[in-house]
Amino acid sequence: MNDTFLKACRGEKTDYTPIWMMRQAGRYLPAYQKIRGKVSFLELCKNPALCVEVTLQPVDLLGMDAAILFSDILILMEAMGAKLEFNEGCGPVFPNPIKDQTALDALIIPDADDATGFVMETIRLLRGELQVPLIGFAGAPFTCATYLIEGGSSKVFWETKKMMFTQPELFHGIMEKITQATILYLQAQARAGAQALQIFDSWAGVLAPCDFEVFALPYVRRIIASLQQFDLPIIYFANNGSTLLEMSASSGASVLGLDWRINIGDAGKRVPGIALQGNIDPFALLLPKDKLRKRIGTILEDAKEVKGHIFNLGHGIHQFTPPEQARIAVDAVHELSCK
Amino acid sequence: MNDTFLKACRGEKTDYTPIWMMRQAGRYLPAYQKIRGKVSFLELCKNPALCVEVTLQPVDLLGMDAAILFSDILILMEAMGAKLEFNEGCGPVFPNPIKDQTALDALIIPDADDATGFVMETIRLLRGELQVPLIGFAGAPFTCATYLIEGGSSKVFWETKKMMFTQPELFHGIMEKITQATILYLQAQARAGAQALQIFDSWAGVLAPCDFEVFALPYVRRIIASLQQFDLPIIYFANNGSTLLEMSASSGASVLGLDWRINIGDAGKRVPGIALQGNIDPFALLLPKDKLRKRIGTILEDAKEVKGHIFNLGHGIHQFTPPEQARIAVDAVHELSCK
Repeated sequence: MNDTFLKACRGEKTDYTPIWMMRQAGRYLPAYQKIRGKVSFLELCKNPALCVEVTLQPVDLLGMDAAILFSDILILMEAMGAKLEFNEGCGPVFPNPIKDQTALDALIIPDADDATGFVMETIRLLRGELQVPLIGFAGAPFTCATYLIEGGSSKVFWETKKMMFTQPELFHGIMEKITQATILYLQAQARAGAQALQIFDSWAGVLAPCDFEVFALPYVRRIIASLQQFDLPIIYFANNGSTLLEMSASSGASVLGLDWRINIGDAGKRVPGIALQGNIDPFALLLPKDKLRKRIGTILEDAKEVKGHIFNLGHGIHQFTPPEQARIAVDAVHELSCK
Repeated sequence: MNDTFLKACRGEKTDYTPIWMMRQAGRYLPAYQKIRGKVSFLELCKNPALCVEVTLQPVDLLGMDAAILFSDILILMEAMGAKLEFNEGCGPVFPNPIKDQTALDALIIPDADDATGFVMETIRLLRGELQVPLIGFAGAPFTCATYLIEGGSSKVFWETKKMMFTQPELFHGIMEKITQATILYLQAQARAGAQALQIFDSWAGVLAPCDFEVFALPYVRRIIASLQQFDLPIIYFANNGSTLLEMSASSGASVLGLDWRINIGDAGKRVPGIALQGNIDPFALLLPKDKLRKRIGTILEDAKEVKGHIFNLGHGIHQFTPPEQARIAVDAVHELSCK
């Protein structure tokens, strides 16, 4: 069992810096594409045998030090009763966005083992297969709320902020319900065998610090507090959250994920004592081998005073990334960090 | 003549904090919509009489302390020979994105008074009308390059970064040509009578600091250096650039624009001695009057140690913003900052 990732999360000494990549089980891998040729994205998410297969692919093919459950942050929103569609090339769509209290009242707080049993089954199956730790995950309430309110992806989050600023009670009501459902969902993942949990706040970075503090952070704190009983590393990733770093560190998370916009050494100085995960620009994987290795070496060097560094991309790996470039990165992290 | 804006840019004492809003001449104003009902966006940009009219609207209607030339950063790209289309609702499109040296060689460095004479004419006409200072502008080379390379707007800038990382000479060649054209363009604006110049780097925030330093900042520095002879305030706005702040301050700009993601007081501590422009979340204009005034008061208070504060939004005003909310903001800034 390779527990380098878990040690780094806990800030313990490791023989080398562990690496995994956000969205490592995904479209850039031909083996994944092959399976997606047969089933839709949502069918895949709900099929434990296939989820196990795609979760294992990057670990087996590229030598990652951790696996992340194959799923989607919006699976829980669907389980809460929000109609969800994934249309090829368009991203997720909620055809009935939440605009009022009636729509909010219609959302349920599901029993996670019941409504999302396929996720828990995937976790149990994976634990029987994996030689590296398994990361479970959920979306942060703010990020999930944006999809429900906008009806899908958004560029500027007008509807979300309009609700925050003109109907704050309704907005907080949505956050409250998502938070309660997320607590049950992540607790069930921990019981099923997840060895670390990541909370993805993909859109936190559209908030001013004063709004993040009021509208997003308190809910993340509650979720993390509810997971303390399991004694697992909790990774909080506030994408584009450079100015939210100190507040994020107060969330109770044991690890903070960093996007590529910040120097990891600078981040480490601002939040000393917490482990950091990141943070090469995912598109920098396109660099020629020598330059890619050099850039990775610089990040490792910048992170050397950080108490626990998990190498990762600053965002999910892009679908057009050649897998062999990802392999170069994994090998470079392992070789260059070897103590 | 109200020169409060220019004084604040120079870090001099003012009786109150001046305010203007990015995209203040725009779709949120019914008077603007009326004109746009008759002409296309590009026709409007090339019609000095109409440009004068829409530039004056927010100054007259809302009491702004500065006017910004009505135009678009991509007008210069079109003058360089890149075919440009604005399709309603789709944003700008360059149907022939630059992919190779041949396409780059086809770009020209135009004589600004000749190719964009309508811009210079607009500036001259406006100076005869305005009682507040007139801001001219251009896009920063990196931001302009993304449009040429992607063929329009982008979410993730894959093509741009792919070129940066795999064909850096071609990328730098594009940047070089845009830089030379921008220098001529802004020098012509200064000669025509612009009293301050803003450089919009709308997409700088997608770059890691190490890439910003190599691929974007040097070109901004050259442009600003070429404008020193005119002794005008130069405002550099690197959107989403919280981690680029110190580097931005080294650009030679006299004012830095801030988006809403950073506390302006924190920014002021990091780059002391430079004037700051910003930075309320444009969507916070939707707040009820008392809360909007309170938020504005907090920003003014946070900025009180900053040497020169120009109040602005952290991004362009959104098209669905009620103009009366913008008016509340203007009045609040004037009243609450009154010394």
